[in-house]
Formats: sequence, structure tokens, C-alpha cells
Amino acid sequence: MGDGLDDLNISISETLDPQDWQAHRKLAHQMVDDMFDYIQSVRQREVWKPIPDESLINLTQPLPEEPIGADVAYQEFKENILPYPMGNIHPRFWGWYMGNGTITGALADFLASIMNPNLGGGNHIANYVERQVINWLIQMVGFPTNASGLLVSGGSMANFVGIAVARNAKAGFDVRSQGMQASPAHLTLYGSTETHSCLQKAVELLGLGNQSYRRIPVNKDYQIDIQILKDTIRADREAGFTPFCIIGNAGTVNTGAIDDLPALAELSKGEDLWFHVDGAIGALVALAPKNRSLISGIQFSDSLAMDLHKWLHVPFEAGAALIRSELDHRNTFSLTPAYLAHSERGLAGGSLWFSDYGLQLSRGFRALKVWFMLKEHGSVKFGRLIDQNINQANYLADRIQQTPKLELLAPVVLNIVCFRYNPGGLSDSSLNDLNQELLTRLHESGLAAPSYTTLNNQYCIRAAIANYRTLISDLDLLIREVVRTGDELNASQLIKK
Amino acid sequence: MGDGLDDLNISISETLDPQDWQAHRKLAHQMVDDMFDYIQSVRQREVWKPIPDESLINLTQPLPEEPIGADVAYQEFKENILPYPMGNIHPRFWGWYMGNGTITGALADFLASIMNPNLGGGNHIANYVERQVINWLIQMVGFPTNASGLLVSGGSMANFVGIAVARNAKAGFDVRSQGMQASPAHLTLYGSTETHSCLQKAVELLGLGNQSYRRIPVNKDYQIDIQILKDTIRADREAGFTPFCIIGNAGTVNTGAIDDLPALAELSKGEDLWFHVDGAIGALVALAPKNRSLISGIQFSDSLAMDLHKWLHVPFEAGAALIRSELDHRNTFSLTPAYLAHSERGLAGGSLWFSDYGLQLSRGFRALKVWFMLKEHGSVKFGRLIDQNINQANYLADRIQQTPKLELLAPVVLNIVCFRYNPGGLSDSSLNDLNQELLTRLHESGLAAPSYTTLNNQYCIRAAIANYRTLISDLDLLIREVVRTGDELNASQLIKK
Repeated sequence: MGDGLDDLNISISETLDPQDWQAHRKLAHQMVDDMFDYIQSVRQREVWKPIPDESLINLTQPLPEEPIGADVAYQEFKENILPYPMGNIHPRFWGWYMGNGTITGALADFLASIMNPNLGGGNHIANYVERQVINWLIQMVGFPTNASGLLVSGGSMANFVGIAVARNAKAGFDVRSQGMQASPAHLTLYGSTETHSCLQKAVELLGLGNQSYRRIPVNKDYQIDIQILKDTIRADREAGFTPFCIIGNAGTVNTGAIDDLPALAELSKGEDLWFHVDGAIGALVALAPKNRSLISGIQFSDSLAMDLHKWLHVPFEAGAALIRSELDHRNTFSLTPAYLAHSERGLAGGSLWFSDYGLQLSRGFRALKVWFMLKEHGSVKFGRLIDQNINQANYLADRIQQTPKLELLAPVVLNIVCFRYNPGGLSDSSLNDLNQELLTRLHESGLAAPSYTTLNNQYCIRAAIANYRTLISDLDLLIREVVRTGDELNASQLIKK
Repeated sequence: MGDGLDDLNISISETLDPQDWQAHRKLAHQMVDDMFDYIQSVRQREVWKPIPDESLINLTQPLPEEPIGADVAYQEFKENILPYPMGNIHPRFWGWYMGNGTITGALADFLASIMNPNLGGGNHIANYVERQVINWLIQMVGFPTNASGLLVSGGSMANFVGIAVARNAKAGFDVRSQGMQASPAHLTLYGSTETHSCLQKAVELLGLGNQSYRRIPVNKDYQIDIQILKDTIRADREAGFTPFCIIGNAGTVNTGAIDDLPALAELSKGEDLWFHVDGAIGALVALAPKNRSLISGIQFSDSLAMDLHKWLHVPFEAGAALIRSELDHRNTFSLTPAYLAHSERGLAGGSLWFSDYGLQLSRGFRALKVWFMLKEHGSVKFGRLIDQNINQANYLADRIQQTPKLELLAPVVLNIVCFRYNPGGLSDSSLNDLNQELLTRLHESGLAAPSYTTLNNQYCIRAAIANYRTLISDLDLLIREVVRTGDELNASQLIKK
């Protein structure tokens, strides 16, 4: 034996398991009680508040070399971290587009991390749970039962997977082996100007080039203009380009617009193009009895991106990519080196090797929280909650239209409401400054957290209501505070007229 | 108001919060007790066992439309899911390359999912925690303090990020805009034949083409052959190719080999190439006092992939990409549409927008478990545990070499041991069959779970000891069971001689 082995008897007892199991268990129970208290009282707190300097300074300390123990670490967490969340657990958070998470989802994350399996592959139960969850998603949106799927981190990765499969399936040459530099013709793809920026990111990373990605103008409802799309495809073909993919939106990020999905499906089929749908926002509307017809046509897509940490309220991260053709999906990602060879029997057996269907080899057990929440509540309830949020958005839009100093800036189809304070007599430029300051003050007040966007050079306050804690009275408060803060700013000298 | 609003008063009370908070809290406490019992008793159970048909059938039920409640869902979890983990929480799991996870890490996942922030950006505490964790990683490996970084799902994504930045920084044209089809010269990159398959996946997805990725032979220690590498680069340049990146390994997946990193760093510098290091397995050896010199040179890399769910034992998923140049990193991923514009103040303020540094926009709070575990135990202890595993691997190798019927098939540098049962008198082909069946029986016995690979056409049993629960006696058991099962198979008629 070498020198290093002499001290084995000393070092052997070291472990990351608790030294004192009973004390650690007690700490865990304390955490449960604290977190229940935290969520039960969320409405009593600010949506958001600035982080004090002391906490920020604590988070600049160098690598801790010596242990402080779990109890002290938890105290630091409670003092410096827990009080300053993003706010999307709060009833009056409507920023960007997020879900609330749930207590059950958080507990399921705990259970998943205790089991700590790797869902890259192998014959163990977690892979079967993921397969079941994927089958449920397939069932929700009406995909064929033999479709393929993968749970991923979220919409960005789900869209990346879809476009990657589209590229490889439609390029007409072996992209995996030869690379895009071998492309005999310039491949082009199409989406509306309202398509989410993560599609541009996917296009760029996949080596397709942003120049190949045609942004098609939208109509007044922010839907892709089908005639311009057709004309652009034809012109591209005539100019020697090779169109290969159309991207449709089921719920755009700015306004919640839904493209004419049946028309896009038909056009894709006629032109032999891949039809990808970004359903990160809207695909789950398939569950909502009063609104599901809005996304009709989604079931004809070749690939579909979904987000489960949005309207299903699964804690971050949880998205899904569904691919109609299992073969196309597998052909894009599958790689089996010797150290991952699949066996007939034993732990390395089984038919579920999800690493053959995406970028990740090591994959966590995110499926469990989805499984748990759908079991707990049933899918029908999630559908009612989605209808409830759409109702609330319509209520908010009605209130805006009934309020003289407020202006609705886009049609409300789903749950996204874009508006601004506009008392009249101010230029767009002044209104932009005013509304931006108004929103910042709203955040700083801790009363409500919508976000923002810009439509036709007009700065909008934007409320995306994917929130099961929101009550109608919360929306009344938003209206009141926007008008009050707007009046205050308009009366001040802060905004140039 | 529209029709849909009439029933608002009915639907308004629906929420995903518990109907009965007290009952749900009780369930959560039950989960904590069950999970502590589960981990405390892990050594008493099989490493792995086959899943019974009843459980598999339960996991083929269609989408649950109606609620079953959290209590019943948890019962189903305990009956059908919890008993059939992958096994990497067990003291005798040494398959592929995984960590164990920890109780504290699982609790931190619970806390993170309760807060449920989105670390895409914005001015909230979670982003500062991630920034601190990245700074700690930078400090660990000796990167410059102004280096950039991102927590990601694991090694595959970390390597993808590194090669993406390499591609865009070194291509010499605007890849993001023009795509790889605009490449004026054929870009090529270099790594040893032992490099992990996720690098091939990254190369293929990035549109570089597997053909552009030169696999350089290794020496007898499974390190990249520097002279052949130099010759290949020169030949490529002469043939009109454009070399842009060298990939070094700090711990190969097959045998744990570490390339000559200082030589690769020097060569990269001299040739003006990007130097990427896959440190998914070995980068954390930087913490280990007795072995850290093995990975010397890693600090000279331009990009470095790390895995924290491996030797740091953070529950899945946790990896990290470190990039020396913050500008190069940002220039590859940054995109700021109107709905993500960054503000001066309020929730949309702050300087930490991690979505500008990777593929994901929505990002979970994986930083918390890393933060919590490093605080709890201190980095010095993690270093000792890494040394402990390397000691154990050396012990196992010594035992193999002292056992006449066992054959060590590769040098042991880190914690990976490749060997086989070889009683003499059998062809390689027979030995391959015998050892494959031997390993399967070992899995099925529930006694131990190493994995496998193939080196020089010889099937190896492969033990990757990244396990803080492993004792020396567990390795003695492995030796005993391999010999016993090997003898049994050798005496049977199953294996053709």
C-alpha cells in the first residue's frame, strides 16, 4: 500500500451525513414550520423590497473554509436570504411570466433530492415517473400517443430542443457530422416579430444564424401575418434559400397573442416545413374548459415547447419539449459511448434513457413535483384556475377601459394586460418616462409588481396574471395605485411635459 | 363586463394553497421523519432492486383529472416510487460518476422551491447568492477574480457553454448573426479520444459538425498525446482548416486520467487557440490537499466545466461553467428584448442578469444548496473527503493487484478503478461475456453497483468512488463478491470458453 493509505483509519469516518441525526431532524422540522408560516403570511408582506446593505455585504464573503454547521447556516439564510425573494409567490406579483410554485411542489423537490436519482437513464423508478408525466402532457395537448418528450429546465431549453430537431430533420444533409458549414443551401426559418427572444438564442447557438431567422410582421392583434409569411417563403425560395421551419406562438410574451395555429399547420404541411410551436405561455390552456379552443391547432405541431413552472405553478425549473416523431427526436441527440452502453438487465437496463433525447446527460427528478401536483389537485382544477386568471385579466382590462386616466394598449386574449397611465396632454415620450417611473415606484412601494414592455414605442405597464393567489380586490388595488402614483408624478416636476 | 365574469365570485376562491393548512403541515412533518429514516437506514437496504410490475403498472395510468389529495399522493409515492431509487445514495454505489446528495442539500432544495425565485435576472437576493457561489468556485480553482460564471444543470451544459463561447470568440466572423454556413474556413477543435461524449453533443448542436472535432490518441496513461496533437494542428493549418479550440480533460470518465494541462495551456497560447477544460470530474480536486497538484494548470483555461452534483455531493442538478473573459461570455448569450429591459431601480434593477450568460432565461435557485452545504461543512472538509475517496480507490487497486483472479485494466490516478475477473485461460471475448454477466448479477444481488466500460476491447467493471458513505469494508465486500460470482460463472456452462 502507498503512503496515502496509512491515514485511512483516521479519515475513514468522515462523512457529510449529520453528526447528530436527532439535532438535524429537529432543524428540518423547524424549517417546515418556518416555511409554512412564511407562505401562510405571504399576503401580509411586501411583494418586493430592496435588499439592505448588510445582507449584500454578507453575500460577498469569500469561500468558507471551516464549517459553521447547518443551524448557523440556516440562521444566516433566515436573516439575509429569506426576507428578499423575487416576489412571484405573492398575490400581487404579475411580472414577466411566472407561476407561484406550491408547498406540495417544494416538498416534492425535497423528496426528489433525498432519493437523488439521475434521470439520464437506467432501470430505476424515476425514469418511469418522467415517462408518465410526459404521457400526461401528450394527453393534455392532444399529441399522438406515440409522441416523444423530455422534461427540461424551461421554455428556453424546450424551444432549443424543438429547433434542434427541426434543423437536423429538415436540413437534407448530415448536420451532426458535417456541421452547418456544409449546408448546400441557406436554411431559413420564420416566426412573428412577437416571438420570444429565446428562439433567437436557439437559432444563434445552433449555428443557423440570426440572419436566417425571418421576423414576420404581426396584425393588429399581434398575430403573425399569414399572407406576408407566405410571400416571404415564396420570395426566399425564388432567391435560392431553403425554408425549413415555421415557428408559431401559443401566447406571446408581450400580449398573450395566439397565432392562427391551424393556418400555420396547413401552410407548413403544404410547404413541407417543420412546424414548431412555442407554447410556454399558452399550451396549458388546453386544460381550461372555457378557453381551450383558443389554442386549437397546437396538436398539429411537429414540436411543442411547454412551461410547467408557469401556469401549472410547479416550482422552478420545469419545462417540457414534445416532439411528434420519436425517431427525429432521438436522431438529434442520441449518443452511446461504451461507459453508457445499455444492458439487458440490472441497473443499466430498461428502455428509458432520456439522455438520448436532450442536451443533458445528468438529469434531476423534476418529474416528481409535476406528478405530485397533478395527482394532488387533478388536471381539471388546473384548467379552472387558468380560466380564473383569464377572467381576472378581462376584469382588469374592463376596469382600465372604464378608468379615464388609464389606456389599454393591446387586446387581451389570455391573461396579459398591457396598459399605461395617460391623463391626456402628454407626448408619448413623456408618457414613457412617467410610466417607467410609475412602475418603479410601484415596485418600491411593495404593493404590486407588474412588469413592463414596449409596444409601438409606447412603454406599457404589463400585468401577466398567472397567479392562483390573486383576488379581484388585488386588481382593484393595482388600478387605484397606478392612478394615484400617476397623478402624483403628473403633478410633480419630475416628468418633462 | 363579459359573460365570463359572471362566475368570478364562484371561481375566485380556488387556489393551490392547502385547504387545511394544519393537515398539510402535519404531512410535511411526516415526510421529514420518513426521509430521515430512509437515509439513516440506507446501508441496510439493497443498492438497487428491480421494480415490481404493480408499481410499473401504476405509473402507466392516464392523466389524473380529479384530485386524490396530497396525503394519498404521498402514500402512492411511498409505495411505488421511494423503494426503487437509482441507488447512488447507497454506500456501495460506484456507477457512472455521481455524488450521493445530502440531507442538507435536499432541505435547501425545499427552501429554494418555497421562495421559488427566478434567477434569470432582477434585483432580488437569490441572484446575489448565485454570484457568491460562483465567486467561491472561481476562488477554488484559482481563476482570476473578475472571471465570469454560471450555475447550470451539469457537466453537459457547462461544456456546451464553454464551447459556445469558444466558437463565437474565435470564429473570426459574426457567428450569431451569420451562422456557421458563413464560415470562411473550416473551424476545427481538438480533444483526446477519452473526452466525454457530451463534448461531441455540444459540437454537433452548435453546428460545428462532428467531423471538425479531431479525436487525438492517448498515451498508456489515457492522457492526450501532445505530440500527435501538435502534428494534427499543423497538418490542419496546412490543409486550410482553422483550428480554434483545444479541449483538455481534468479527469476522464473512463479512467480518471488528467491531461497534461500546463502543456495544453502553453500550446493553446502559442497557437492562439481557446483552451477549454472539462473538469466535471476533477476540477474539485482543487480542494483536496493531497491531490490538488494533479490538476495544476486548470487555472490557465479560458473556460472550465465543473459538476457540483458529483464530488461536492450537491443533489441533482448542479453544474457550473466558468469563463475567463466576462466579455466573451456575455457576447455569446446576451439578448435584451423590451420585456426584459433592465431598470435602474426596483425589482427590474440590479446588475445580475444571468440570462445574459447562458441558454436559460428562467433559472431556479440551485445556488442555495451549494451555498448551504459549503457553509455547513466548510470547503476544507470537502477536500478531505475527496482525498479519502482517492485513497479508497488506491486501496481497491492494491487489493485487485493482490488478488490473483482479478486484473487491473487502467492506472488509477483519481477515484476510478477499471478491472475485471480473469481466472486465466479465457479469451478476451469470453472474459467480456463473463464480466458483463458478472456485473449484472452484482446489480441484481443488490450488494454493490459499480458500472462498466470498454478499454482496448476489454469489458471492464468500473468503480467510480465519489461516495462519502463508502467504507473500506465495502470495497472488501466488492472484491469478495466479484471473485465469488466470477468463480460461479466460470464453473457454469453459461460462458463459452
